[in-house]
Amino acid sequence: MQDLPISHFPVVERQRCSEDLQKLFAELEATLGFVPNVIRAFAWREPRFWKWWAHRNDLMAPSDGLSKADREMVALVVSAANDCLYCMTSHGYAVRVLLGDPVAGERITLDYRRAGLDARTLAMLDYAVKITRCPAECALEDVEGLRKHGFRDEDIWDIAEIAAMYNYTNRLASATGMLPNPEYHGLAR
Amino acid sequence: MQDLPISHFPVVERQRCSEDLQKLFAELEATLGFVPNVIRAFAWREPRFWKWWAHRNDLMAPSDGLSKADREMVALVVSAANDCLYCMTSHGYAVRVLLGDPVAGERITLDYRRAGLDARTLAMLDYAVKITRCPAECALEDVEGLRKHGFRDEDIWDIAEIAAMYNYTNRLASATGMLPNPEYHGLAR
Amino acid sequence: MQDLPISHFPVVERQRCSEDLQKLFAELEATLGFVPNVIRAFAWREPRFWKWWAHRNDLMAPSDGLSKADREMVALVVSAANDCLYCMTSHGYAVRVLLGDPVAGERITLDYRRAGLDARTLAMLDYAVKITRCPAECALEDVEGLRKHGFRDEDIWDIAEIAAMYNYTNRLASATGMLPNPEYHGLAR
Amino acid sequence: MQDLPISHFPVVERQRCSEDLQKLFAELEATLGFVPNVIRAFAWREPRFWKWWAHRNDLMAPSDGLSKADREMVALVVSAANDCLYCMTSHGYAVRVLLGDPVAGERITLDYRRAGLDARTLAMLDYAVKITRCPAECALEDVEGLRKHGFRDEDIWDIAEIAAMYNYTNRLASATGMLPNPEYHGLAR
Amino acid sequence: MQDLPISHFPVVERQRCSEDLQKLFAELEATLGFVPNVIRAFAWREPRFWKWWAHRNDLMAPSDGLSKADREMVALVVSAANDCLYCMTSHGYAVRVLLGDPVAGERITLDYRRAGLDARTLAMLDYAVKITRCPAECALEDVEGLRKHGFRDEDIWDIAEIAAMYNYTNRLASATGMLPNPEYHGLAR
Amino acid sequence: MQDLPISHFPVVERQRCSEDLQKLFAELEATLGFVPNVIRAFAWREPRFWKWWAHRNDLMAPSDGLSKADREMVALVVSAANDCLYCMTSHGYAVRVLLGDPVAGERITLDYRRAGLDARTLAMLDYAVKITRCPAECALEDVEGLRKHGFRDEDIWDIAEIAAMYNYTNRLASATGMLPNPEYHGLAR
Repeated sequence: MQDLPISHFPVVERQRCSEDLQKLFAELEATLGFVPNVIRAFAWREPRFWKWWAHRNDLMAPSDGLSKADREMVALVVSAANDCLYCMTSHGYAVRVLLGDPVAGERITLDYRRAGLDARTLAMLDYAVKITRCPAECALEDVEGLRKHGFRDEDIWDIAEIAAMYNYTNRLASATGMLPNPEYHGLAR
Repeated sequence: MQDLPISHFPVVERQRCSEDLQKLFAELEATLGFVPNVIRAFAWREPRFWKWWAHRNDLMAPSDGLSKADREMVALVVSAANDCLYCMTSHGYAVRVLLGDPVAGERITLDYRRAGLDARTLAMLDYAVKITRCPAECALEDVEGLRKHGFRDEDIWDIAEIAAMYNYTNRLASATGMLPNPEYHGLAR
Repeated sequence: MQDLPISHFPVVERQRCSEDLQKLFAELEATLGFVPNVIRAFAWREPRFWKWWAHRNDLMAPSDGLSKADREMVALVVSAANDCLYCMTSHGYAVRVLLGDPVAGERITLDYRRAGLDARTLAMLDYAVKITRCPAECALEDVEGLRKHGFRDEDIWDIAEIAAMYNYTNRLASATGMLPNPEYHGLAR
Repeated sequence: MQDLPISHFPVVERQRCSEDLQKLFAELEATLGFVPNVIRAFAWREPRFWKWWAHRNDLMAPSDGLSKADREMVALVVSAANDCLYCMTSHGYAVRVLLGDPVAGERITLDYRRAGLDARTLAMLDYAVKITRCPAECALEDVEGLRKHGFRDEDIWDIAEIAAMYNYTNRLASATGMLPNPEYHGLAR
Repeated sequence: MQDLPISHFPVVERQRCSEDLQKLFAELEATLGFVPNVIRAFAWREPRFWKWWAHRNDLMAPSDGLSKADREMVALVVSAANDCLYCMTSHGYAVRVLLGDPVAGERITLDYRRAGLDARTLAMLDYAVKITRCPAECALEDVEGLRKHGFRDEDIWDIAEIAAMYNYTNRLASATGMLPNPEYHGLAR
Repeated sequence: MQDLPISHFPVVERQRCSEDLQKLFAELEATLGFVPNVIRAFAWREPRFWKWWAHRNDLMAPSDGLSKADREMVALVVSAANDCLYCMTSHGYAVRVLLGDPVAGERITLDYRRAGLDARTLAMLDYAVKITRCPAECALEDVEGLRKHGFRDEDIWDIAEIAAMYNYTNRLASATGMLPNPEYHGLAR
């Protein structure tokens, strides 16, 4: 296997990054153990990066109705539907950790319909995939179907917006040639 | 034609919106003539709205290499590839205005390959559609192809990120049932 | 925007067209204001043109069960499903005029499922799109479904035949490179 | 195998058909040996039928540049691309007869790319299938490609129009439930 | 029609084949009248051939619950879904013989949903096509649906395994360029 | 995560399996550490199992031109193209082991075009995916293309036949509801 660059675009050397970025790097190394390549690859457009980062973090913060694991599962099945190597790898890892179940985590990466998930979770993930694959066919009936599973309007909007967000992230990562950090593959197995 | 609500989710009455939002409403009425429904529909999740709005506005600001019209054309062909009524309508209007050519604007909405565009613009729009339709097939060769048309790396990243962004916006609009303001249809014809 | 020819094939100068054609041109200028490019582009195969014209006009004539607007809406959604610039433009105009509603007309052009149409009209248009997209999957059940909406057998046959006809027209226009008259875009807005 | 009706719509008894139709029936029985079901199924809309019949016959008449076999092969591969049982059966028979080669005739019905056809014929049939499958992607380059194979503009228009016509016929036959006469299957084998 | 080789790979001359193969050739000539090209084309990898042959023959042997005609119909509709000329031709012949009905046999080759088949047979063939087209969407519900039609578990497994097997055979035949024996086309008409 | 059965069909208790199967179980436990569920799930149709097993093992045995890793990579990308959870899991494990590179192994599972593979391997895998996705479009040119990469005819046939075989295996596994052993997920990480 040939060693590939992590982006088709310029990658700023760590020591040349802004203080703000270096602070984020340090935080991530403390918690995750390394700096995700998406941040390294995005660093050359720093002002843009921070805007996406703020939006993304707000969206992935857990709420009463939608846990962190729920949000990460939505991100993961959207990424799988878009065949995004970077995001399947990084969110596959996150789901393995958050479920505390590496087998379920990988099955959701490969085929969430064969992962033994409950009906409520399946309904959420089916909706995320529908939004990804055929957004124009989404209708009020889909929202009503999720309400019947006990999701509140805030939760349903968040499922839709997270699905939408990873349709952004997957495409930015795939188009710019981002590659996931090798560390992800071996963690939480 | 039945009158449809502009969202499947709660729409905050204008007078109950925050001062910040009311200020934005006033600005848009002064420049555009009305408040786009996407803002009305997003208002019930105001903190989230502002994060998206900041990112989106940064992304759509013109640069030396990529004009406002270029950016709006990318948004438009992505929206057409995703069959997003809201965004085809609003960005179709924007392109009609920015090109100062209502015929070209509508042709780009309906089939940009039959709109008499130059080779550089076609290459940009073909890339945006490829990112939309089959992101995992994007490769370094696509980036190199755009460089040959004179696009700088900053421009190419922006084309990719705008394409990615409208894959978010189209899906949020389609899933949440946003409908475009009727005013758009008749303007700049 | 570059000025494109209206056909990949020879276009007969107006004054060299037959008397019959010139008579038709005059009539259309009197009623519509201009001669649709499809007729200019088809003129070099005049005997063939008249045969298609006779069939098409018979098919688009209103009946008790299927109004002119109904017939034009079928033509329009078929043309949209086939991404036919010429026919979306010309029949989009016709629907705007016939419904007396430019907003509904453009919404049907862009996404008829988000145009506030009644259930009967939606059933008619869904059938036309099914015939366009997956004709071999059409079955007796589709016909029976339309009967339940009050369509008579003559109406259902006509919906099917109009859908079929625009699958012809869309492909002839797209393959031969016909471009719509610029006048269409600005009318009935 | 259950005996199925030849149409989802009313079929006029032969003796109740008009004199003109009965004359056509007699002619076809004299030449072909039976009355094709498409005519029986279309008879209840007789004025419409004659208009289609006139157009279709004009289009299928051989010219210097495009033989009857060429025209029937175009009809056949379009019908196969649309999975139209009626037209694959009737035009498969016609191609077997016209080529005087039942093996080639059936191979063109099932997969024309594995039928040993020459490059000129393959280019013609590839164009017909492109018009059928993705009409909006057709461009001037396709026309120029056929010119290089020696086709004149009249021939190329006819290939396009025949392809377009069978997109009409296939859909009318599939939607209305027309079934081919059993006689076709055993002839010219 | 040009005469094409029956394989992209070396074809062993009959007299140079092993004694075992020559014995099989003789048997097939006695029963079928000729040696199917699949065996001629596979002969250069003889040990592999016998392994496939043993599996395939076991799978196509009739049982109480699934007749030889049932098994051949499954093979045929899978081959049609995969557009495999070789297998549509050879199994089309087999179905014509086994049903004793050349018209039904060809209709199943071209569109099994328009062949007048009973509900049990249609359910079996729909399942085979689903396994072919979207295997990952198959679920326990499909198995339960067939049980309701009276199929035993052994029968359902066999339907699934025959469908799977012809997804192998179709791809091997199409990729290696196997062409069917011309004799098939004219037999049992 | 709910615990799911490993098959929609009867699973024979280990101690009730034949002596031959029990011997195979013991061998696999000695080498792999567990009995793959495909064998447990196939055991109720034991004679059929052995025929498939003999064919599969012959096909996966390494040759001078095509290593065991090559063969497993072909199996893996076909399984990914068919979204087969069972085979992506078991052959993903095999590729991780055989390449001695868990990162490359998982990247080939998720997107082999972003795994840093050399041109010869990519050509082999692209061919396997083409055979899987659009077998009827395979042609002599594909075989010739692989010859230029140095593959001998025996190798090319094997690539095609392995690709074909996993189109069988993927469909049998997906249709019968086979689930992979949980052990696979954590091994060779």
